[in-house]
Amino acid sequence: MINGHGDDIYDYAEIKVNFSSNVYARFPQEGLLHHLTQSLPSVTNYPEPKPRQLEQALAHYWGISSDALLATNGATQAIYQIAQTFKDSYSAIWMPTFSEYEDACRMNGHTVYGFRALADVPDSVQVVWICNPNNPIGCVVPKEDLEKCILSHPHTIFIIDGSYAGFTQKATLSPMEVVAFPNVVLLRSMTKDYAIPGLRLGYIVASTPLIEKIASFSLPWSVNQLAIEAGLYLVAHAEDYRLDLGGMRREAERMSCALSDLGIEVFPSDSHILLCRMPQGQACDLKHYLASVHQLLIRDAANFKGLDASYFRIAVQSPQEDDMLLNALSEWNRR
Amino acid sequence: MINGHGDDIYDYAEIKVNFSSNVYARFPQEGLLHHLTQSLPSVTNYPEPKPRQLEQALAHYWGISSDALLATNGATQAIYQIAQTFKDSYSAIWMPTFSEYEDACRMNGHTVYGFRALADVPDSVQVVWICNPNNPIGCVVPKEDLEKCILSHPHTIFIIDGSYAGFTQKATLSPMEVVAFPNVVLLRSMTKDYAIPGLRLGYIVASTPLIEKIASFSLPWSVNQLAIEAGLYLVAHAEDYRLDLGGMRREAERMSCALSDLGIEVFPSDSHILLCRMPQGQACDLKHYLASVHQLLIRDAANFKGLDASYFRIAVQSPQEDDMLLNALSEWNRR
Repeated sequence: MINGHGDDIYDYAEIKVNFSSNVYARFPQEGLLHHLTQSLPSVTNYPEPKPRQLEQALAHYWGISSDALLATNGATQAIYQIAQTFKDSYSAIWMPTFSEYEDACRMNGHTVYGFRALADVPDSVQVVWICNPNNPIGCVVPKEDLEKCILSHPHTIFIIDGSYAGFTQKATLSPMEVVAFPNVVLLRSMTKDYAIPGLRLGYIVASTPLIEKIASFSLPWSVNQLAIEAGLYLVAHAEDYRLDLGGMRREAERMSCALSDLGIEVFPSDSHILLCRMPQGQACDLKHYLASVHQLLIRDAANFKGLDASYFRIAVQSPQEDDMLLNALSEWNRR
Repeated sequence: MINGHGDDIYDYAEIKVNFSSNVYARFPQEGLLHHLTQSLPSVTNYPEPKPRQLEQALAHYWGISSDALLATNGATQAIYQIAQTFKDSYSAIWMPTFSEYEDACRMNGHTVYGFRALADVPDSVQVVWICNPNNPIGCVVPKEDLEKCILSHPHTIFIIDGSYAGFTQKATLSPMEVVAFPNVVLLRSMTKDYAIPGLRLGYIVASTPLIEKIASFSLPWSVNQLAIEAGLYLVAHAEDYRLDLGGMRREAERMSCALSDLGIEVFPSDSHILLCRMPQGQACDLKHYLASVHQLLIRDAANFKGLDASYFRIAVQSPQEDDMLLNALSEWNRR
C-alpha cells in the first residue's frame, strides 16, 4: 500500500475546495443519510457472509444474473482479489494509471508490463488491466477498439476498471455486454457512482465461470452492513444520482483551456478528470502552496505508475470553485 | 468461503433469542449509535488509506507502540492477510476450531496439519494457529503452557486469535506481553469486544518487525469510515463495555449441567461459549426445529474443522432465555 492517495483532506486543517478526489460531492445525500440513520442498529448484527441481497439488487438493476456479480469492500478490494485469483500471471497494465493494479499484481507474484496503446498488448500476456475511463487522464478507449482487442486475444483476461464509467458520455462496455465475453471482468465503484467512499462498496461483473473463479477468493463478511444497506437504498434510488454529464464536460473543457493559458499542459479527457503537467517545479510543492495559502486541495499525481513529480490531477468542480483554483494558480505563477 | 456461519438470523422470519452468535448483545449501544448518527456525513469522504488514528488510539489503550498494531476489516480479514503473509507454509491448526483458519491457509498454499494438544505441535511447523479462548469449545489454553510452547519453538510463528479474550476470567497473553515475543501474532475483534459485527473491525498485535511484514499485504481503505469512527468512540468508552464475567460463567455452568441432564454432551468451557453434542440425530435438524417451532437460533457446528453433524454451539444468554432453550430441548427429546 502506497502513501499519497487523493482525498487526503484529513491531513489538512482547513480546505475550502477539494479538487483532489474524483468523487462527485454534490449529490443531495439527505435520503441516504436518513436511511442509514434508521439502519444504524443493524451494526449489532453480522452482515450476510456473502452479500447476496445486494448482489441480486445490483444484478437486477443491470439486467444480468446475480451469478455474474460479486460485491466487494470497495473496488480496491476487487482489484486485489482479482490479482490474487490470477496470481503469478504475466500482466499488462495500461499506463499511466492508478497505482493499485501494479501493487496488487506485485503482491500476488505477477510479472508486470506497462503499455500505452491497445496495439501494444502482447499476444502472450495473460491479464490486461485497463482503467476506462482512465484515472488520472480521464480519457476513454474507443469501445470498438477495445472489443476488437478483446476478441483478438481470446486467451487473455481483460480487467476493465469502470469506476468512472458514470462520468463520461463516451460509450463503454455495459455490464450486460461484459457478461457475454468469456474473458472480460468489469469493476464498478459505488463509491464513485454515488459518492460514498467512506462506506467501501464496489462490485465485479463477469461471465459466471469467471465470477466463480474470483469468488473462490472471497472472504466472509467483507462488505459491512451499512455498506449493504446503503447499496440497497442507492440502487432503488439511482434516478436521484444522475449527473449533468454535458455541463460537467463543458466545464472540464473550459478549465482545460484556462489551465493551458496558464502554461500548464492538460491531457485530452472525456470526463471530469484532468491530468495536468507543470512546465516547471514539482506538484508536491504546488499542492502544499495551494493547500496552505488558498485552502484548495489538488492531487499530486507523482505516484501514478508512468508519471513523475511534475504531474497533478484535478476533478472539475463548479465554475466558481474552478475559478478559485485558476486564480490561485495565477498567483503561484506570479510568485 | 463456506456457508453456514453463525448469526444467520437474516435467513429466518422471526427469532426470539439468538444463541447462534458469540457476540454479547446486551451492551447499551445508545452512546455509540448517537455518535455514529453524528458521524454519518463522513461516509461521503474517503477514510484514511491506513487507519492510523484508530491504530494509535488502540495502541495507547493497550500501552504498546502503534507500530505494533494493525487495524483490519474485521478479524476475518486479519486471518486471511496473515495466511497470505506466510503463504506456502507448513501450518498446524488447533482443532476443533473456526473454519476460516484452514480456509485462509488453503487459499494461500499452506500445507495444513490439525492438532489437539500443545505437546503435539511438531518442531518443523512454520505457523501455528490457536483460537484462544477456543471457538467453538470456549476453553482456554493455560497461559504458562502456551508461553513454554512459544519459547520452545523459536522458529515457529504463533497466530493466537484472541477474539474471545474478553469473555474469560482465565489468564491469556495481553497485547503488551505479545509484542515482547518475536514470534507471536495476536488477533483481536472489536466485533466481539463491543458487539458491532455489522461494522467490521478487528486488529492485529505483534512485534514491529512482524507487523511490518504483515502490513506489506494491507489494502488501502480496507477499514470503512464508520468502523473507524466507532472504534475511536469505543476505545474512549471502553469502561461502558465491561462484562459481568463471573455471572456469565456461573450461568454457563448452570446451563452446562442442565444440558447434560437432557442427555447432551457439553465440553468443558472457560467462557460463555458451550459446545454441545447430541446423543443422536443431527444438529441441522435440531436447529431447524428450534428456529421454526420455538423461534430460537442455535449454531449448527458441523462445519467447524474437526467436528461432525452431531455438534451444535450456543452462547449463553440470560437465565430466562436459557430456560426457553432448555424447555425447547426437552420438547425435542419428547417428540
